[in-house]
Order: sequence, then structure tokens, then C-alpha cells
Amino acid sequence: MTFNNTIIKEMKDRVFKGNLQLPKWGLVTLTWGNVSEINRDLGVVVIKPSGVDYDVMKAEDMVVTDLNGNLVEENSLKPSSDLATHIKLYNEFKDIVSVVHTHSNNAVSWAQSGIDLPVYGTTHADTFFGPVPNTRQLTKKEVEEAYELNTGKVIVETFREREIDENAVPGVLVNGHGPFTWGPTVAKAIENSLVLDQVCLMARNTELTKKDNELPQYILDKHYYRKHGANAYYGQK
Amino acid sequence: MTFNNTIIKEMKDRVFKGNLQLPKWGLVTLTWGNVSEINRDLGVVVIKPSGVDYDVMKAEDMVVTDLNGNLVEENSLKPSSDLATHIKLYNEFKDIVSVVHTHSNNAVSWAQSGIDLPVYGTTHADTFFGPVPNTRQLTKKEVEEAYELNTGKVIVETFREREIDENAVPGVLVNGHGPFTWGPTVAKAIENSLVLDQVCLMARNTELTKKDNELPQYILDKHYYRKHGANAYYGQK
Amino acid sequence: MTFNNTIIKEMKDRVFKGNLQLPKWGLVTLTWGNVSEINRDLGVVVIKPSGVDYDVMKAEDMVVTDLNGNLVEENSLKPSSDLATHIKLYNEFKDIVSVVHTHSNNAVSWAQSGIDLPVYGTTHADTFFGPVPNTRQLTKKEVEEAYELNTGKVIVETFREREIDENAVPGVLVNGHGPFTWGPTVAKAIENSLVLDQVCLMARNTELTKKDNELPQYILDKHYYRKHGANAYYGQK
Amino acid sequence: MTFNNTIIKEMKDRVFKGNLQLPKWGLVTLTWGNVSEINRDLGVVVIKPSGVDYDVMKAEDMVVTDLNGNLVEENSLKPSSDLATHIKLYNEFKDIVSVVHTHSNNAVSWAQSGIDLPVYGTTHADTFFGPVPNTRQLTKKEVEEAYELNTGKVIVETFREREIDENAVPGVLVNGHGPFTWGPTVAKAIENSLVLDQVCLMARNTELTKKDNELPQYILDKHYYRKHGANAYYGQK
Repeated sequence: MTFNNTIIKEMKDRVFKGNLQLPKWGLVTLTWGNVSEINRDLGVVVIKPSGVDYDVMKAEDMVVTDLNGNLVEENSLKPSSDLATHIKLYNEFKDIVSVVHTHSNNAVSWAQSGIDLPVYGTTHADTFFGPVPNTRQLTKKEVEEAYELNTGKVIVETFREREIDENAVPGVLVNGHGPFTWGPTVAKAIENSLVLDQVCLMARNTELTKKDNELPQYILDKHYYRKHGANAYYGQK
Repeated sequence: MTFNNTIIKEMKDRVFKGNLQLPKWGLVTLTWGNVSEINRDLGVVVIKPSGVDYDVMKAEDMVVTDLNGNLVEENSLKPSSDLATHIKLYNEFKDIVSVVHTHSNNAVSWAQSGIDLPVYGTTHADTFFGPVPNTRQLTKKEVEEAYELNTGKVIVETFREREIDENAVPGVLVNGHGPFTWGPTVAKAIENSLVLDQVCLMARNTELTKKDNELPQYILDKHYYRKHGANAYYGQK
Repeated sequence: MTFNNTIIKEMKDRVFKGNLQLPKWGLVTLTWGNVSEINRDLGVVVIKPSGVDYDVMKAEDMVVTDLNGNLVEENSLKPSSDLATHIKLYNEFKDIVSVVHTHSNNAVSWAQSGIDLPVYGTTHADTFFGPVPNTRQLTKKEVEEAYELNTGKVIVETFREREIDENAVPGVLVNGHGPFTWGPTVAKAIENSLVLDQVCLMARNTELTKKDNELPQYILDKHYYRKHGANAYYGQK
Repeated sequence: MTFNNTIIKEMKDRVFKGNLQLPKWGLVTLTWGNVSEINRDLGVVVIKPSGVDYDVMKAEDMVVTDLNGNLVEENSLKPSSDLATHIKLYNEFKDIVSVVHTHSNNAVSWAQSGIDLPVYGTTHADTFFGPVPNTRQLTKKEVEEAYELNTGKVIVETFREREIDENAVPGVLVNGHGPFTWGPTVAKAIENSLVLDQVCLMARNTELTKKDNELPQYILDKHYYRKHGANAYYGQK
């Protein structure tokens, strides 16, 4: 397999800068997070190496794999241990170009509760067109046989069985673990991680004051479509 | 229509700097906020453009409209999608010169609860002369017909029906959405956003310890009038 | 009255730097706080001017008054509106040299609850030898006649009636208002404000997990006397 | 006793830098924390001096003691008052090389509740192989006779009586006091303090949303052994 080296280099650069963006925005402590990007034409994924400190990590350290998770470059570092989850998402969610996983505080706290994140306001509605689902917990068998792959499978199962459009709800809470988000670019996937963490914070705080004041569906529609789709009118042309 | 360009330029400068103040004070994530200023003599409003990143935004990008929301300058960017809310407030609240909207964490969290913000202490009383009201939710019809305009209308309705003086309570929580504040200058309107966020935080924390210890009316009177009106004695003459 | 100008100048410098320390430690938003120092030999108090922005305030702007609150220097700025509270504390608490008032988040939140701050741990015990009392609310008459003076009176009443030693518990929560702390130096009085805010935060968080696990008196004794009094063994000789 | 001065110097340097790391990561306010390191071959412990401000503290100020807590160097500063606790841990937990004590916010808050920290998620499981225990409170006798030594004893008792492996759960919450963590290096012991504070924060926030969704044992196994032991596959080789 031969590559267009410029494309790979640019992918590495975006994935590298994306990984550095996470601690800058307070979404990642230590090395608890990873960003990847897929190029579907070339059939490659670029992802953060596993457990490398952010202040020594370089763009060229980003790991290139094929869509089965095999290393593509010689002298490659080991990819993030969550690689198989990312690849499962790329294989099933056909429109997404980037996946981000963090252990950001508020999103992890909510993921650990095991319940879906309700839509309490327009901050949520602007990005996520409905509740952000919390997956079921993996079974013992799923964990022992292929933990990271099955984490991806349980995410996909959650969206398929509950008929949630992964492009309209670009993120998930994995029960007892934390958030995964995605999007059409690295920048958007990271932004979705930031929004998810913020709306988890706001939802928790709202519930401390009063529960059960969820946003009506027609306001959810309005805010989501103000920013997304053919009739969006937010932002410049 | 011809303008005094110096006045417009100074308005743009204040509105621009005001918008940058919001993330600096932690009141705005991403581009979730907007500041505007009115000049009632000239009949113009200057407001932030819609969805422009704060680190590329320039003072000259600020958008100038008339009091019906029509663009006044050639090659103008699109105004904030919340423009119609701002204009409705300017048209009804005759003394205000600046309007600020944020999605600041604590104020949004409280807005999402749908209940009024009680007066628990003098930090609140120094700025807001009574509870900060939470509006009713807009109806489906209001949302679908003219969402941003009707957001302004429901704010005004809240103050008029409950006979709240908008100059004594310079802010509101829009149910399921977030805070709007206003004031006689851009600086004051932004300061009111900061205070509103802080008193929402403090009120939530107070309720976690103990509910229902609201401030007596006579202390509210004392603190408010220590800082406002003819007999104020706070600050330098 | 003539002054030793060097002493006054040094007092102004300490009070000025102390006031700047408050926002640096996150204890003060906007201008919501004030620091003062007394010199009992000279019979003067130096305090922050009222409502001056911290980024334009200079050391020489600090206001000098006598023990009745009268201005001592020509062309003086107006003193903090809380001056009368500070002076009342100096007149009654004979050992203290500095008083600090803030609207720090966690201490205000607890002050607004109207209940005492229990001793949940050694972080509290290291500085405050017992619960930090919350005052009663002032009466309408007290507020209308001499609000700031009566705020001082109600603090003193709280310590005297409940037989609390103000040197062992160097701070108070004023019901519906916020914290005042004091100490033998400006630095210590400010440190006490920081500790009070931190232990209010910790106490609230502890109660969210479990209430009523207060520290036994013998551990309170141990920790307090490890740091204070003749047998203290914390810190360098 | 004669020392290899290079080794001692390097220990002092690591302990010094470790102590500075604590406020940098937000784990320590004022001087509320201490880091130590043991060299079992030389029979020495290096620990922070007691109550010295972090901005004047130098590497050479670190205090060297033998395993009975006796000062080893002339002109030594006084060691941290918690020295006896550190030494007890070194004497009983034979594999550990560094001990860290902080008063970090979230860990102290949980320690003050007196209950164990449950395993709610994989962030916890990656570092602590089971609940982090909260000790019993010391008795009056234990406090009065040898407080710091007995704090160490009650930690050891907690691990021994409940048959917890101190290498698999490298930290503890001391009831009404705060966290101690340890590890094979200063860096790892400090990292464990950071993780413990974060998982205390997340656990509290999780319980605000929903209690009792603890992580199944098989996921705890998977995450812990992904990072620890012979079959670990996280990080670079």
C-alpha cells in the first residue's frame, strides 16, 4: 500500500493538535483521552499513541493503522488502547471523520450514573438533537473477549436499537466509563466533547435546583435546526 | 441615512471589547454569547456577528442595524441570530443602552430549572432589587412563527405582568435557555451578567446547605439603595 | 494630630497589597471585598477606598481614619462602606490587627444558609477552634438606623453571648451577607478568609456525601494546638 | 553514618519538585501537603520541612531523617509534622518508595464523610483496584499519645484487617482528615493523589445524578489489568 504522504502528514498534524486541545480546554487530565481521524479513501486511521505524555508527544508520533487496526508505518509507536473502539465506530457510522474520547469530569460523572442525559435547554439542543444516550454495561463475556471492540459494538447497538441518528446526536456516554464524541472534522468532534461536558455540568446543576423541567420538543427542533441542515441561519453564510 | 462615523466606530469598539470580555470572565464558551449597544438618537444597534470565532473577530466586524433589524452597512456580516430579542428589549425597555446574552454555566443551569432566582443575600441585593424572574416557556406557535422576537416578547411580558421594574432588576432567566442582562452601558450590562452568574452559583450552593433562608425585604432595600439612586453612598462620589 | 509617616505608608502598602491578594486568590469578584489594618498606638485605621477598580487603585489611595471613622488625611477618597463594621470589630476584639471582608463564593453560600459551619475535619481545626458561627439576621431597626455599625455589633454579640474566643475562631459568617475574618497581621487575616472559603466548600461537599460525621473534640484540640499556642509544633521554630 | 551525597541530593531534588507540583496541579492550598521519598538501602527518608512557604522553599531545605525520624543532617529544618505517619507507612508497606499527603478539596471532602469511596467507573479502576478505604477515627488515647504515628497505624490496620493490597490500592482516606497516597516513585505517588482527588469529585457528582450504579467487578479487573501487571497493554512497551 502506498500513501500520499502529504495527506497522512496533515492528518497527523490535525490529530496531534487535537490531542493537545483537550487538556487546554480542561477536558483531559494526564493522558486520559484520545483523538483520531479517518481517511476513508486511503483506508487509514490516525490516532494518538498510547500513554505518551502530552509535553513530549510530537506530531510524527501519531500512529497510522488500516481499518483492521494493523500498524501501517515502520517503527510506529503503539496506538491508543481504545483504537478498536474508534475503528468500530468508523466502520458503522459512515459519515463521521473524527472520534474523540475523554475522561472529562462532568461527562464521566454522568456516564457513571448509567442514565441518559436529558435535554434541559437550548445549549444542549444546539448540538445534540435529543437526549445523549447512556449505553448498557458490557457483559462479563464482552469484557473478557474483546473489551475495546465490544465497547464500540455496544455504542453502535445503542444507536441502532433506539433508532438514534448518530449524525444528529454526535456523542454517547458509555456506562461506567465516559464520553465518546464524533464529527465531520477533528475540530467539530472535539467541540462536541466540550459541549457534552458543559451540558452534563448544567444538567446536574439544574437537577439540584429542580428536576423534570425538560425542554419541549418544538424548542429542541427550533434550536437544532437554527444551526444544522438546509434551513440553518446561525453563523455566516 | 448618514451617520456620525465616530460614534458608530466607538460603539463598535465597545461592543467588540465587551464580547471579548465575556470569555475572559468565564461567561462564554466557544461563541455562545452576544453583546449589543443602542444609540437611540441615531436609531441604530451595534451587535456581534453570528458565529464568528472570538480570536479572528475584529471591531469592524460588528454589525450595525436599524431598529427593525435591517442591515445598515454594505458588506456587513450577518448579525447574531439573537438580534430580534435584543431589539425587542430596546424597544420596550426605554432606559437601557446595552443588552448581553450568555450561556454562562450557573445562570443557564438555573434558567433550565424554570423557577425564579430567590434573593438569598446581599451579593444579589447589591445589583438585583428582588428575585430574578424566570420566564414561562414559549408556546409551539411562538417558537415556530418568530422565535427570537417572541423570546424578547416573553421577557417583556414577564416584567410587565409581574410589575417588575427592568431598571431595578436588570436581567432575566429565559426558561430552558439562559440569561439576558442589560444596563446603561456595555460595561454595566456585562457586569450584570457576571453578578447574575455568581448569585445563581451562590443560591444553588446555599440551597444545598439549607433552603428558605431568604433575605428580609428591609435588608434588600438597604443594600440596593446603598449602591443605587439618590441616597447611594457606595463608591466614590 | 501628627503621624509617623513611615508607619502610615507601610500600613497603606500592606493594606493595598492585601486587597490585591484577594482577587488573585479567587476570593473577590469585581470590587467585592475590603482589607483594613489598625495601629492602636496611633489610633488609626487604614482601609480600602469604596468601589475603586483594583486595576487603577494605588497604595496611596488607601484611606486613613481615626477610631471613630473620621477621615484623617486631606483629599482622602471615601473609605469602604463597611468601615463602621471594621471599626466596631477593632474596638471590641482587642487583639486583632487586621480585618478582611470578602464575598467569596463558598463562604457567602454558607452565610446565606443562616446556619453555623460545623467542624468536619482537620483542615477546619487547623485554623478555627470550633464551628464558625453564623450571626442572627439584623432587625429592621438595626438595618435602618446604622447598618454597618450594627453588622459589627451583631458579630460581637454572637461571640460574646455564645462565649466564643475571637482569637481562637478568627472569623464569622454574617447571615445573608458573607464572611468577615481577622488576625494579628494583614497576611494572616487574608489567609483566614481563604481557609474559611475552603472549609465551607469542603463542608458542603462532605454533606453531599454524608452528613453528621463531625470531628471529635479531641482531634479538634489536637490539630488546633499542633499549630497554635505554647505547645505548637507545626512550622519552623 | 556516611551518605552517598549524590543520591541524597537527587532525592531532595525529586521531593522538592514533587512538593511544588502539588499546588501547580491544584492539590494544595497554602502549605497543606507534603511529599517524601525513602531510600531503603541507605535507611533514610527525605521529606518537606514543616510550614515553609512554597515560594521561598529550596531543594536543599528538604529534611533528611533516619527510619526512626531522627534528623540526619546538621542545621536541618524541622520536618513536616506528618513525618511519623510517612515513616510508619514505609515501615509497613515494604514496596513503596514515596508517600504524598494533601488537603485537596475533593479527597478531603470525601474523607470527612467517613465512608469508603466506591468504584463508579473506569477512571477509578485504572488506578485503584477496588474502593479506596476510609479509616476509622482515632480514639482519644491514640490522638493524645502519638497522633501522627497512630494515624499511620490506623492506615495500616485498615489495609491489614480488610485484606486490601496496598500496592493495588495505593491510597487511603483518613477519616476527618484527608488523603494519603503512595507509589514506587515520587511522580507516581503524586499522580495517585491527583487521580484520587478526581475520582472523589466524579463519585460525588455521579451520586448527585444517581447512586448505586457501581462498576461490575469484571470491568474493574479488565481496566486495572489493562494498565498494571504482566499482561498490561496500555502505554508504550
